Amino acid sequence: MTTQRLDLSQPLSVPQPDTLEPPSGIIIERVQPEIDGGRYPAKRVAGDILEVSADIFKDGHDTIAAVVKYRRKDADDWQEAEMRHVDNDRWVGHFLLTDNTRCVYTIEAFPDRWATWQDEVEKKFDAGQDVALELREGRLILKDALSRASGDDRDALAAAIAVVDNDGNQATTVRILLAPEVEAAMRRARSRRGGKVYDRELEVVVDRLAARYAAWYEMFPRSAGTDPTRGATFAEASQRLPVIAGMGFDVVYLTPIHPIGRAFRKGKNNTIGAGPDDPGVPYGIGSEEGGHDAIEPGLGTLEDFRAFVAAAAALGMEVALDVAFQASPDHLWAKEHPEWFTIRPDGTIHYAENPPKKYQDIYPLNFDTLAWRELWLELRRVILFWVAQGVKTFRVDNPHTKSIVFWEWLIADVQHDHPEVIFLSEAFTRPKVMKALAKAGFTQSYTYFTWRNFKSELEAYFTELTQSEMTEYYRGNLFPNTHDILPFILQEGGRPAFKMRFALAATLSSVYGIYSSYELGENTPVPGREEYLNSEKYEHKVWDWDRPGNIIPYITRINAIRRAHPALHRYDNLRFYPSDDENITAYGKATADGEDRVLIVVNLDPFDAHETWLHLPLAEWGLEPDEPFQVEDLLSGETHLWHAHQHIRLDPHDEPARLYAVRPIRRVSYVEGCG
Amino acid sequence: MTTQRLDLSQPLSVPQPDTLEPPSGIIIERVQPEIDGGRYPAKRVAGDILEVSADIFKDGHDTIAAVVKYRRKDADDWQEAEMRHVDNDRWVGHFLLTDNTRCVYTIEAFPDRWATWQDEVEKKFDAGQDVALELREGRLILKDALSRASGDDRDALAAAIAVVDNDGNQATTVRILLAPEVEAAMRRARSRRGGKVYDRELEVVVDRLAARYAAWYEMFPRSAGTDPTRGATFAEASQRLPVIAGMGFDVVYLTPIHPIGRAFRKGKNNTIGAGPDDPGVPYGIGSEEGGHDAIEPGLGTLEDFRAFVAAAAALGMEVALDVAFQASPDHLWAKEHPEWFTIRPDGTIHYAENPPKKYQDIYPLNFDTLAWRELWLELRRVILFWVAQGVKTFRVDNPHTKSIVFWEWLIADVQHDHPEVIFLSEAFTRPKVMKALAKAGFTQSYTYFTWRNFKSELEAYFTELTQSEMTEYYRGNLFPNTHDILPFILQEGGRPAFKMRFALAATLSSVYGIYSSYELGENTPVPGREEYLNSEKYEHKVWDWDRPGNIIPYITRINAIRRAHPALHRYDNLRFYPSDDENITAYGKATADGEDRVLIVVNLDPFDAHETWLHLPLAEWGLEPDEPFQVEDLLSGETHLWHAHQHIRLDPHDEPARLYAVRPIRRVSYVEGCG
Repeated sequence: MTTQRLDLSQPLSVPQPDTLEPPSGIIIERVQPEIDGGRYPAKRVAGDILEVSADIFKDGHDTIAAVVKYRRKDADDWQEAEMRHVDNDRWVGHFLLTDNTRCVYTIEAFPDRWATWQDEVEKKFDAGQDVALELREGRLILKDALSRASGDDRDALAAAIAVVDNDGNQATTVRILLAPEVEAAMRRARSRRGGKVYDRELEVVVDRLAARYAAWYEMFPRSAGTDPTRGATFAEASQRLPVIAGMGFDVVYLTPIHPIGRAFRKGKNNTIGAGPDDPGVPYGIGSEEGGHDAIEPGLGTLEDFRAFVAAAAALGMEVALDVAFQASPDHLWAKEHPEWFTIRPDGTIHYAENPPKKYQDIYPLNFDTLAWRELWLELRRVILFWVAQGVKTFRVDNPHTKSIVFWEWLIADVQHDHPEVIFLSEAFTRPKVMKALAKAGFTQSYTYFTWRNFKSELEAYFTELTQSEMTEYYRGNLFPNTHDILPFILQEGGRPAFKMRFALAATLSSVYGIYSSYELGENTPVPGREEYLNSEKYEHKVWDWDRPGNIIPYITRINAIRRAHPALHRYDNLRFYPSDDENITAYGKATADGEDRVLIVVNLDPFDAHETWLHLPLAEWGLEPDEPFQVEDLLSGETHLWHAHQHIRLDPHDEPARLYAVRPIRRVSYVEGCG
Repeated sequence: MTTQRLDLSQPLSVPQPDTLEPPSGIIIERVQPEIDGGRYPAKRVAGDILEVSADIFKDGHDTIAAVVKYRRKDADDWQEAEMRHVDNDRWVGHFLLTDNTRCVYTIEAFPDRWATWQDEVEKKFDAGQDVALELREGRLILKDALSRASGDDRDALAAAIAVVDNDGNQATTVRILLAPEVEAAMRRARSRRGGKVYDRELEVVVDRLAARYAAWYEMFPRSAGTDPTRGATFAEASQRLPVIAGMGFDVVYLTPIHPIGRAFRKGKNNTIGAGPDDPGVPYGIGSEEGGHDAIEPGLGTLEDFRAFVAAAAALGMEVALDVAFQASPDHLWAKEHPEWFTIRPDGTIHYAENPPKKYQDIYPLNFDTLAWRELWLELRRVILFWVAQGVKTFRVDNPHTKSIVFWEWLIADVQHDHPEVIFLSEAFTRPKVMKALAKAGFTQSYTYFTWRNFKSELEAYFTELTQSEMTEYYRGNLFPNTHDILPFILQEGGRPAFKMRFALAATLSSVYGIYSSYELGENTPVPGREEYLNSEKYEHKVWDWDRPGNIIPYITRINAIRRAHPALHRYDNLRFYPSDDENITAYGKATADGEDRVLIVVNLDPFDAHETWLHLPLAEWGLEPDEPFQVEDLLSGETHLWHAHQHIRLDPHDEPARLYAVRPIRRVSYVEGCG
């Protein structure tokens, strides 16, 4: 047993053979947010306050102090925010995320010798003990701090030392040393000896607000025209923009706008062998007219696209593009870079399959290729090309069939220079894969909302999305329909179901979207399937945008309510409330200060009226248990007087969902002044 | 944007600029056991099977495979155990922990190309598609594997390749390639290309069985004699060993046996100013007769101690020593190494305080000393000295007032050469500090059991201890009393309470202990306090070990039941069952194979009888919902026929606790054979 053995010893990270100080006794653990041991960043938006908490303690009885250290990821200088002890060795600190960037944070904790001393001397003095020796010990701590103090603090500490040196009345000396000014000066000048910095630097992606709060409208631009003999151009599609903006949408998401391959092109309703007038599926990207950085000629030119983007921007909307990283057999990639695909033993490129189904019109990229670096760079080039055209939002098609580490790299790399860029993951797959994509960097994610119709499954799923660790990295963008999915509930429930599912999407999450024709209540399926008959995927269509039975006024109203209520701009503030009927779900959202509070009650049965008692959390709302309160029905404009246990009836043929603003009744004093 | 940017890029651990292969798409996360991201080891005992589980998946649709890799920490060669997919991307694997040592484990996962191919070709062939090209692709995978195959596997793969080359009947070729023998050979010869090893190596401390399963008996050896005028010697104390062994104890734990200081020695009942005959507190360690490596002369010599250890060993027991790392003012450390203590401004050593209380007879060590290395080495020397005397178990006094990193180093260091050594943490402090000590390496820990008396608090606490992550690193050694703690329930509940609390301690955990005189029902307190009047801490006593009302037969019986039932040797198998009465708790323990199953029902009220319905989990026990079963009352020997909903009455003045062996009734067939 030699000293050597001690120094090299066991795999403690702590004993440093060349330091004089003993290893710190501070333990910092269970830091939040911290995803998978810091492997992945948390997500917030600019303007948020980040709360960092941790278990922090040390052996023995010393008082400790702790600070959150934080900085922009691209900066070197740390800032600090004091943490405070909450309970049971749990500490918490906060800082403001000012900019759309990435930030790094960690924790430093250390013994607080002055606080320990204060506590000791106070107890002894109160017990009538002589504290002469303790005062000399306090003087040593003050003296040590003096070298770090400046300005007024320096004066305060020097004065305190002089009082001890003066050796006057002990009670007076104690009182002066325990004064708040000395305490404040000591906090600023305190030693961090014996302290420890948490051994991980954690990251938070600070997105812009639209990452969390936006209403999306998906459209096939070619179906936005009026001529049934051909697809619409961007110029024609831009005529639709004022209507879309008028409904209150923030993002216009376009299915792929690139040239469509001819080889194995599909006809109407996914038939094999397209006719000469069949426009093809926009996801079969690439022809002799170009690939992922080109515009389908039927839509117009790159200039036309830029004009479309500008027209949207003038209406306060942005344009999101669909990123489908796959190729038609006619794509230039297939000719110039066959090594980016899977080559079969007969030399052909492996087309997409889901055995026994075959998709000869699509070549998937092979992310296992040895030429992966060139492939990754080309795909990044595509994204940056569109960023250069003013696109700041991308909806990524089937990201789970591509390499997750590729996405992790791509998103971080693009956001390094363009932190404003938003990526939406369109993965409908196994839960852990969907979570992995979100952790890897996707700003938003599709969810199972599309198929969650009943009370218990909805409440369980949204509790997980918004109240579990998922809320740190996964932002569910709720779509009641997509161009690929016409859920049975919309097929069978008709107009009441369209209203009900819209109200849910727009209020359960702060970010949601619909696929166009939703506002028209279009719900003709391929029989027995959750797919649209005569889908726009395979043809260009002309729509009657004012068709009877549409829910455009409803959508417009709910989007206006969303804008007016900041409670609906937050994601993790969703809370469910008990109701007695299995068809009726009730939930609320509020701003952190409680100033804005919205209560939503939805009848999930699109066929029949139901009624129930609601049980509302008055204490949580700052109300007395028996206190009545006002609710304003945000759809009807009516005001009601409500109670903790409130009866409600919802007829889906009238209003399947009710949105209420909750307001305490002003407690007016009827005792007039005498003035 | 250059290739350089890609290679150096973001803090992905993945893209390696100098490898040809793309970064692996495998994700391995939520590995269990893994404590604080692998910062601390899990704990098991030799003979346990370690189950390792994780979420494992990759992008895309490839089938994957995974193995647990494991090795002794002091060895280099990894062994492997195949993992299997359970559900929802959760995988599990197992390996046997054979030796009392430390082991390291991690996970490797990789695409299973052959399994992916099998799946694809099977679906296509079943759908009647031509699979000629797929067979050629299969041949490539076989050929690649051939180079890694040996023996019969090599032959099997070569034969499969030859079948493809032979280009005969496709159905036959498919059948042969999909045969189990080819699958088995491919599993052994498969490529791990595209795979990933989990980025942490995790550790498990494999203790000997006594770490988990033992009954402790604490005693002051000086009070084991018959002469009231002086303390007993080891020789006299060893007369007690057959009695202790007869009660069924495994460990005899001695309070400190070292020379006791004279300075500021305490008299009877903790009075200031000891008389010349007061023996002093054994925790005031160190006098001119020696320190932590010496024997109090009143007890005898080191040889006497070794004889005591040998006498215990001959009875199947081991001796545990009390480690109190502090010094009396007379300790040699205080004279030769004042730098190991806290020196005050007047040059004196800081004695122990809990302001305003003062403990002038104790000098705490200062773990913040700059001479920490010398101090750590000296303390290790003390432990190793006693290990050399045959001591393998240490009960550590107040470890939370010493440096936790010191303990982490000390325990790992001692166990490196002496893996059999067991450390029990006597920390009664805040929950997170108690957990931190266990994580840092303590084999066993004291618990709040001593003060958990009522049903809901008992069940909540033991669910946390045995069913949460705590069970991975924290083994609660339950003491219903200690020399410092005579709980109110024992003071007020008398003999029924002593029986009840004993039964709880001996069955809620596989490891427990009592402080001597418990078997006598000694419960005279310092009035109003949870302390013993005339405590052995301050005097030597002479006991009547057969005194009326003792519960020695009860203790003996329950320890015998513990020995006979392997279900009670496990710790994490505790399960509570519902009972309707708030005074009655019911719980069970079973071996993994269900062969041994013990049900315990305890009336927690020491004053009055209570009766209740029990609701027993028959499905969990492998019984039909309405199936009756036998229970053997292990205290009375009676057998009963019971049902899922069973009524029971417990009178604390008769038996406050019932222990039952649960046995399915043998289903005898009354239809005789015709032989």
